[in-house]
Amino acid sequence: MRGLFIGRFQPLHLGHVSIIEAALDEVDELIIGIGSAESSYTPKDPFTAGERMEMLLGYAKERGWGGRLLPVPVRDVNRYSIWVDHVVSLLPRFEKVFSNNPLTSRLFSDAGFEVCSTRIIDREHFSGTAIRELMMNNGEWQSYVPVSTSRLIKVSGWMDRLNDITNGDR
Amino acid sequence: MRGLFIGRFQPLHLGHVSIIEAALDEVDELIIGIGSAESSYTPKDPFTAGERMEMLLGYAKERGWGGRLLPVPVRDVNRYSIWVDHVVSLLPRFEKVFSNNPLTSRLFSDAGFEVCSTRIIDREHFSGTAIRELMMNNGEWQSYVPVSTSRLIKVSGWMDRLNDITNGDR
Amino acid sequence: MRGLFIGRFQPLHLGHVSIIEAALDEVDELIIGIGSAESSYTPKDPFTAGERMEMLLGYAKERGWGGRLLPVPVRDVNRYSIWVDHVVSLLPRFEKVFSNNPLTSRLFSDAGFEVCSTRIIDREHFSGTAIRELMMNNGEWQSYVPVSTSRLIKVSGWMDRLNDITNGDR
Amino acid sequence: MRGLFIGRFQPLHLGHVSIIEAALDEVDELIIGIGSAESSYTPKDPFTAGERMEMLLGYAKERGWGGRLLPVPVRDVNRYSIWVDHVVSLLPRFEKVFSNNPLTSRLFSDAGFEVCSTRIIDREHFSGTAIRELMMNNGEWQSYVPVSTSRLIKVSGWMDRLNDITNGDR
Amino acid sequence: MRGLFIGRFQPLHLGHVSIIEAALDEVDELIIGIGSAESSYTPKDPFTAGERMEMLLGYAKERGWGGRLLPVPVRDVNRYSIWVDHVVSLLPRFEKVFSNNPLTSRLFSDAGFEVCSTRIIDREHFSGTAIRELMMNNGEWQSYVPVSTSRLIKVSGWMDRLNDITNGDR
Amino acid sequence: MRGLFIGRFQPLHLGHVSIIEAALDEVDELIIGIGSAESSYTPKDPFTAGERMEMLLGYAKERGWGGRLLPVPVRDVNRYSIWVDHVVSLLPRFEKVFSNNPLTSRLFSDAGFEVCSTRIIDREHFSGTAIRELMMNNGEWQSYVPVSTSRLIKVSGWMDRLNDITNGDR
Repeated sequence: MRGLFIGRFQPLHLGHVSIIEAALDEVDELIIGIGSAESSYTPKDPFTAGERMEMLLGYAKERGWGGRLLPVPVRDVNRYSIWVDHVVSLLPRFEKVFSNNPLTSRLFSDAGFEVCSTRIIDREHFSGTAIRELMMNNGEWQSYVPVSTSRLIKVSGWMDRLNDITNGDR
Repeated sequence: MRGLFIGRFQPLHLGHVSIIEAALDEVDELIIGIGSAESSYTPKDPFTAGERMEMLLGYAKERGWGGRLLPVPVRDVNRYSIWVDHVVSLLPRFEKVFSNNPLTSRLFSDAGFEVCSTRIIDREHFSGTAIRELMMNNGEWQSYVPVSTSRLIKVSGWMDRLNDITNGDR
Repeated sequence: MRGLFIGRFQPLHLGHVSIIEAALDEVDELIIGIGSAESSYTPKDPFTAGERMEMLLGYAKERGWGGRLLPVPVRDVNRYSIWVDHVVSLLPRFEKVFSNNPLTSRLFSDAGFEVCSTRIIDREHFSGTAIRELMMNNGEWQSYVPVSTSRLIKVSGWMDRLNDITNGDR
Repeated sequence: MRGLFIGRFQPLHLGHVSIIEAALDEVDELIIGIGSAESSYTPKDPFTAGERMEMLLGYAKERGWGGRLLPVPVRDVNRYSIWVDHVVSLLPRFEKVFSNNPLTSRLFSDAGFEVCSTRIIDREHFSGTAIRELMMNNGEWQSYVPVSTSRLIKVSGWMDRLNDITNGDR
Repeated sequence: MRGLFIGRFQPLHLGHVSIIEAALDEVDELIIGIGSAESSYTPKDPFTAGERMEMLLGYAKERGWGGRLLPVPVRDVNRYSIWVDHVVSLLPRFEKVFSNNPLTSRLFSDAGFEVCSTRIIDREHFSGTAIRELMMNNGEWQSYVPVSTSRLIKVSGWMDRLNDITNGDR
Repeated sequence: MRGLFIGRFQPLHLGHVSIIEAALDEVDELIIGIGSAESSYTPKDPFTAGERMEMLLGYAKERGWGGRLLPVPVRDVNRYSIWVDHVVSLLPRFEKVFSNNPLTSRLFSDAGFEVCSTRIIDREHFSGTAIRELMMNNGEWQSYVPVSTSRLIKVSGWMDRLNDITNGDR
């Protein structure tokens, strides 16, 4: 059986990881929809879809899950009324949706999919917003993301970009 | 003579109704441009264009105006410099524009249309923003919309959606 | 009960009319989806959505159908996989689809709608392509469209445009 | 080392397979860019990106290549001048590009990538165009695609769609 | 007085030049709208807007017209009904339009502009289509374009690209 | 040598002027990229690209720089990962980039361009945001823009528009 989990992964963090782990107990393969795929270099979306895919592939390798995680970029269409069809047309068939987002859950469940609503524990810390905040303020963000992700971000020099992402011309 | 009134109708409320009534005193047919037609399932635009069209058709039936109101979805183009031409190309010819929005009035009047600037009385209560606020907080919103609209929203289960419209993945 | 019939109506012709008449025997209201709404001034799509809506409104008046025909512009999205949801989100609820296009029939029927596949008789003559061909070559096109449509096109001077619609700068 | 091979895979055929096999001799992982990802249900692009991804995943399983092939949908941007950056931003880093398309080769090589131009043998038969032609005319197309692909297409009922993909409303 | 002349300039040729010369007899400054600005690397539009702007700037320098020609890229919007407003919003004010395209003439004249319809002499040879044909078949195209343009194209190596512009993956 | 300076010029102000002056000491011609070219009639972007181009042309005339400033509208693409290629494809070749925006500097420098990061002195006053604020509140904005720009804005009646730019339908 194939499942789907959609997130923005800006960056991949341990909150995502716990959902992925739980989902892999139930399905053979898990499609990871990388949302807002065409956004990058902004405070809310600093990393490109390709960079986020590297985080996911590196993590899958760290855990020996090669081939069971299928990361796929999904661009925003900004029209919720067509969003499920948009996603479905880009992905191989799946039977179960894992989601911690009430609107995503509703849209897929209205479209007839089995939805497993999950909840991230300690959402205050395990959230992309909080972690990006730490990244931009030289805080201690490393403990909230997988080891492979933190190493990848450092080695690749992606942190430098975060300081420049401001709105200069006003 | 045909007139035009443009609004977002999120939802149709009694402020719109008073403008429509006044306009129908002056024109034979009134095109109702349903703005931001492709937005829905967001806090600012919870209802689809089709749902808003149902509100308008239901209200026209309630009032016995069948055939005099012509509701037409108009999507945003996000470029005010081409907006009048965009609207004109989508609609049957009209001679007079009714508007309570200063920018809309200016754009149509600059393009040579007769514009009738109207004012909504008691704008504090008769505003989509205020009514959506009440809807999301279980307030008493029903008295600000036509009876047929309030019944339609309840029967159709569209209220459920409002609770889920939040931004889950951060 | 509400039905839907989608066409491009470039221009409205008697082939469309026969489908609309048959559909109105089965439903109370018929939504007329005006396809390729944002195309105009091309050989394939000479008339704007607003002009085509005028053809439909004029014809409804000629037949005394005011209020039973609901013409609505529907822009192309060029992605068939999301097309049904696109259309549905723009229109009031409908229960039955009338179509003389096999792909439209398949897409709506796959999405769970009741589809009534109709056939235009004498498709060789009652086709937009054939009629536009006649229009551009000063042929006798008037007998293939409703009287109100032929009068509207002549009075409005829309024929002049057809000669200029060529690709000049090569 | 990671490589990239881009195609439309309408459908996956043995010409593609021979390129993929050769590429896997040189790289550890091969990203498969599924081009024109958002096109489907047309004579030139009958299958959705998700369906084409299934063809690729099924084939990878048939060959025991799980985890070495990384299929990723890539939508068209219709601007060749930004195309390489578009592709790069969606994909994990890669070092080598495999291509049988001269323009693709030029664009990537101009952008500084190592490009390995390959050639499909017997291009007359091993081409998507030829195979789709056979599919639409009940010809013998099965011998030009992998066994897993031919089985998938038959089991999934995707062939039915091909007959309806015509342009009905003219 | 400022004038406007719109073309695609794929490439700039002596037919354009004769229109520009005639226009400069009537106006102080001439805006050159570079149409289809975002198309390039295709058989119909081989050169980028920037490359076409270089052809125009080089030619202006050759003729000592610096400052009187104002080349401005104008992207297609593919909706003729909004096209004039689109163009007007991107350009400084102009009073007169020079055009050898009947549709352009009609659209600007309908919008109230003074239009000067010009005609290219010997249109069979002085056409972009004919010249690109020669370019792709190693014909003698140089005598149909300004000296500065032919030198620029050769020096810049833009000819190489023409051979690769074919559709490889079918 | 040709340089590039990109800004929004809402409106052109003396902060821009000081950068342009410094740049013209180093290059022969300076392309002025007019960013967010398709935005206008909003609080953040009140003027059209064409109006901003007039400000720049008027200023060039005031300074006797005709032919050395090349103003070119550049629309937003909202994808930083393709932004440099987007800009490059629209402009004639340039060798040096002048920028007071850290993200612009980074993107062009990552793409291999020589970037000259400049700084606007007294950024608090010489900023579009501050000047628009003064414009909307009848403050003394004239001393922050070139004389030709202030005269153009007054003569053209563009100030009237600022009062209407509010969001009426809520």
